[in-house]
Amino acid sequence: MYTIKTIEWKNDKVVMLDQRLLPEQEIYNTYDDYASLAKAIENLTVRGAPAIGVAAAMGMALGALGISAKNFDDFFKKLETVRERLARTRPTAVNLFWALERMKRVTLENKTLSIPELQECLKEEAIKIYHEDIEANRTLGKHGATLLKDGMQVLTHCNAGALATAGFGTALGVIYAAQEEGKRIHVYSDETRPVLQGSRLTAWELQKHGVEVTVICDNMAGTLMQQKKIDCCIVGADRIAANGDVVNKIGTYSVAVLAKHHGIPFYVAAPLSTIDVKMKSGKEIPIEERNIREVTHIKDQMIAPSHVDVFNPAFDCTPNELVTAIITEKGISRSPFQEPFSK
Amino acid sequence: MYTIKTIEWKNDKVVMLDQRLLPEQEIYNTYDDYASLAKAIENLTVRGAPAIGVAAAMGMALGALGISAKNFDDFFKKLETVRERLARTRPTAVNLFWALERMKRVTLENKTLSIPELQECLKEEAIKIYHEDIEANRTLGKHGATLLKDGMQVLTHCNAGALATAGFGTALGVIYAAQEEGKRIHVYSDETRPVLQGSRLTAWELQKHGVEVTVICDNMAGTLMQQKKIDCCIVGADRIAANGDVVNKIGTYSVAVLAKHHGIPFYVAAPLSTIDVKMKSGKEIPIEERNIREVTHIKDQMIAPSHVDVFNPAFDCTPNELVTAIITEKGISRSPFQEPFSK
Repeated sequence: MYTIKTIEWKNDKVVMLDQRLLPEQEIYNTYDDYASLAKAIENLTVRGAPAIGVAAAMGMALGALGISAKNFDDFFKKLETVRERLARTRPTAVNLFWALERMKRVTLENKTLSIPELQECLKEEAIKIYHEDIEANRTLGKHGATLLKDGMQVLTHCNAGALATAGFGTALGVIYAAQEEGKRIHVYSDETRPVLQGSRLTAWELQKHGVEVTVICDNMAGTLMQQKKIDCCIVGADRIAANGDVVNKIGTYSVAVLAKHHGIPFYVAAPLSTIDVKMKSGKEIPIEERNIREVTHIKDQMIAPSHVDVFNPAFDCTPNELVTAIITEKGISRSPFQEPFSK
Repeated sequence: MYTIKTIEWKNDKVVMLDQRLLPEQEIYNTYDDYASLAKAIENLTVRGAPAIGVAAAMGMALGALGISAKNFDDFFKKLETVRERLARTRPTAVNLFWALERMKRVTLENKTLSIPELQECLKEEAIKIYHEDIEANRTLGKHGATLLKDGMQVLTHCNAGALATAGFGTALGVIYAAQEEGKRIHVYSDETRPVLQGSRLTAWELQKHGVEVTVICDNMAGTLMQQKKIDCCIVGADRIAANGDVVNKIGTYSVAVLAKHHGIPFYVAAPLSTIDVKMKSGKEIPIEERNIREVTHIKDQMIAPSHVDVFNPAFDCTPNELVTAIITEKGISRSPFQEPFSK
């Protein structure tokens, strides 16, 4: 299977595929300080909740390596600055905060180590998070693949693939796992305005993996469902509340409503690190609003009048009653979702 | 009120605003032969079902003026070539065929006239169709405005405004009529991928008319409805079947399903020339599929991988059960729609 190297730890540096340039150019950027990595999370060089989590952990490791400190308290204080900077990058994906908290906890648990040992320990933890993410993806992919039959036509929204994770993918991980089992799946990929993760990223990585893909504009999903061309929908998630409400890329909610109207199963695939048990419902989850230029321009091409008012939420919330099942590395949980909806 | 000159008959030529260049440039093209006008309909220089109807009628008049014939039969034969060329431009908007048939009927009804008199007669008929369209828009606008209250927030999709008609507009005509009555209406305009008639055209003309407008990506309409920010939806139509099924710009169906799910009224505004009584249901109406480059590129900017498969239907069909009311120049008809759903 083709391997996409979304993010890697290499010689004490972080190497990431610049997703802003896809599909035209495949360029890998190298980061040796946490501040430039934080910027790369903000500007969508790397995106996708699980990938953001891994990037944040590696950012903490980069930050730790860059600290010169006389003692643990000094080190911890400086590392807190790193953590706070990384925490300010994106508000919605919980994997970011989950990874930062885990790195902080590991730091506190190892306060008796020397500074060089602690730096090494944090580096290892970041790499461990990376491997765990791929492992979780592969496991949830296998669980999810049991829902797919040979010849099915699947609608996906945004990119919840290898590019959104340390590798393999969540929603697309389910497709890849089905493909590995010899099932032929045809994917319809919503282009996913405004950042076009569907047409630029999902179509690109499905092509690389030899999966049949058809790109559609977001507003064409309904007509495909009406024509009975969609057997199920599978999307990823940026944060899932304890009650199973799913916050994911803007437009996911519309797909879920359309699926409900047409009696089509709507599945969400995400690692457990995406579940935020502190959030009782999706209503509590902060929704990032991004720069209106994402809507008014495609690169330098103006596609709306100057000074027009624009609403540009990056995510929306799909209530649990529209979610047929949530696929995690623990298995498939169906509505009504029990806290923490695990097997 | 600001007047947008979408299409005009001027000194035996047709002048049309080049809608492909909006909102960046406001350029008017002049056509003195039917073949170049036919091309302008195909390439979306002019679009919107009622405007296409007027353009087709004026194309017939231009064609008639260009004919040199010895007798009526010769003239009619040559005019049939003109009609057939214009009929091949766009398959879905019925106003095109309605206007062409009307021009043909007028020709046959006036076969006793001299060729110059017949040419003059066809020119007058085209100008009459132009004026009737504006009049129908104004009348249906007034009927539709009774559905709107001061302070309402209205979602629209694509452009069913002055730019889609000889002037004034259908869906936006309802907004303008409400505005003339002193009601303040806030419009949310779906950008309407792939050709972006919502962000490029609707936002532009609403700004020109001093109507508050917020542009959103098509996939954001659901989240606005969920947040109770939409009081009703108003769209135009490219063809309406005898049972009230509405064929309109791709994405209209999704808006209608979302509106139904949220209990929001979904209105369609169109002149009677958009109703095709020969079509028993929307299923019989041909749906144009357009070049995939509309989806894969924004001007020269590539936004999908090379050689990717794309589905690009220009229209979809909203079944009558999702349509709360149809607004025509005869008044407001509510579901279930009686043939020909008139007062």
